[in-house]
Amino acid sequence: MTTLVNGRETENLPVADRGLQYGDGLFETIALKNGKPLLWERHLQRLGEGCQRLGLASPDGQLLRKELDQIAGTEPRAVAKIILTRGLSSRGYQPVEASSATRIVQRLVWPVSPENAAREGVAVRWCTTRLARQPRLAGLKHLNRLEQVLARAEWQDDYAEGLMLDSDGLVIEGTKTNLFAVLADGTLVTPDLSQSGVAGVMRAQILDSVTALGLVCKIEPVSMGMLESAQELFLTNSLIGLWPIRQLEARHYVVGPVSQKIQAALQTSGCLA
Amino acid sequence: MTTLVNGRETENLPVADRGLQYGDGLFETIALKNGKPLLWERHLQRLGEGCQRLGLASPDGQLLRKELDQIAGTEPRAVAKIILTRGLSSRGYQPVEASSATRIVQRLVWPVSPENAAREGVAVRWCTTRLARQPRLAGLKHLNRLEQVLARAEWQDDYAEGLMLDSDGLVIEGTKTNLFAVLADGTLVTPDLSQSGVAGVMRAQILDSVTALGLVCKIEPVSMGMLESAQELFLTNSLIGLWPIRQLEARHYVVGPVSQKIQAALQTSGCLA
Repeated sequence: MTTLVNGRETENLPVADRGLQYGDGLFETIALKNGKPLLWERHLQRLGEGCQRLGLASPDGQLLRKELDQIAGTEPRAVAKIILTRGLSSRGYQPVEASSATRIVQRLVWPVSPENAAREGVAVRWCTTRLARQPRLAGLKHLNRLEQVLARAEWQDDYAEGLMLDSDGLVIEGTKTNLFAVLADGTLVTPDLSQSGVAGVMRAQILDSVTALGLVCKIEPVSMGMLESAQELFLTNSLIGLWPIRQLEARHYVVGPVSQKIQAALQTSGCLA
Repeated sequence: MTTLVNGRETENLPVADRGLQYGDGLFETIALKNGKPLLWERHLQRLGEGCQRLGLASPDGQLLRKELDQIAGTEPRAVAKIILTRGLSSRGYQPVEASSATRIVQRLVWPVSPENAAREGVAVRWCTTRLARQPRLAGLKHLNRLEQVLARAEWQDDYAEGLMLDSDGLVIEGTKTNLFAVLADGTLVTPDLSQSGVAGVMRAQILDSVTALGLVCKIEPVSMGMLESAQELFLTNSLIGLWPIRQLEARHYVVGPVSQKIQAALQTSGCLA
């Protein structure tokens, strides 16, 4: 593993960094395929939007890409993680000038996943931990992730993922994935993330590509009932790509033609590691 | 400034620490008076309760106190900050065994405050950033503090504090303080923190001491209207002690007898720095 902090090779960060003190920052988790970052432009765009919403300095895309290439290695599959924080701070919540931001770029090992998950689908469960509704932070991949930690602590067994509701009982996402459903009429739907959740880059990639595949995807509030009557369900993120859900608690789903069609399109367009 | 990380003198922490990666941890901000921590037992108790709720290993109170004494110095007034995180992590939200927790103990300089704030009161404003309702995290002094950062970024001028509502429009607290109101009938009230907010140790100290002062304090949902008709308002935290509010936006308040009585009692019992 290799880590650059503001361009310098080190595994350490000052304790005074606001990333630790307040979770005052953002991150991106990027698939590296033979050392090449997948969906790089989308990751950079989301990072820029996140910085704008939190009042952090805009990321220097060329510098980030240079540092990413520096640590990327040549393994068939690896993970790059970029963390941007508001940097060093005197004590107190008041943000300091944005120019002092901290930039962390690191390579991590590719995670172990259930075998054949992408082809045969995965079993998932419901989490009891709910996501709070907070429009100021919704959609952002920020460093305040205690809800996900609490949710992921709910199971030790073989479930590949846990699905989360918000405090109003709406379905939002998995702990580390976005969710899509294929409804009875063949329409796709993915939850509205204006109140909570993380707007994943693989989700964005799919939303931008469905029309060319002759599909329609709505972004709207999703109820548990909509999942029960859905024909297909699938999960997405930058590392897993697309995993069909074959089982949600006691209910079984097929690995269906819509999931397979989108998966094939992601593969063809080079979005999968 | 002096910082101990797991007992070792260093200003640095591994980037892989879950405190940075997810804000997966808790902190305490403690007043040091001539090197002696004030309200130590309350701070330790809250830390223990927080660890229990997040599934972190129970803090070793004797060890923490030993390290606190080690860095405390002898200045008339200083700040001690303790951070406990879930420690190093392989990538992913799933918590690792609690035994690997990270323990940070550091001394910081006493913050600059508005002069005579405790005697003459302070002017405060409303924040537009709302607190999300999340019962799993409510009351805890955890490391996910982006809401406070966003709220504190709302003003640059001389207001001493900003008050925050939750997403239902209930009054919860200041960005770094708890709030009390003295109602028209002389009763005290402080907002219920079961859905959001941080349950401060100075708030707890006051709640435990009002009866002996012949006062009654209710913990219940507080509306903006209740503040408008209140006789007195005041803010509390471990460092400031008690600050009367003399102005909330356009509305003026007196520095009244109830605030002064409680402040005097805190002074007498050695709770103020």
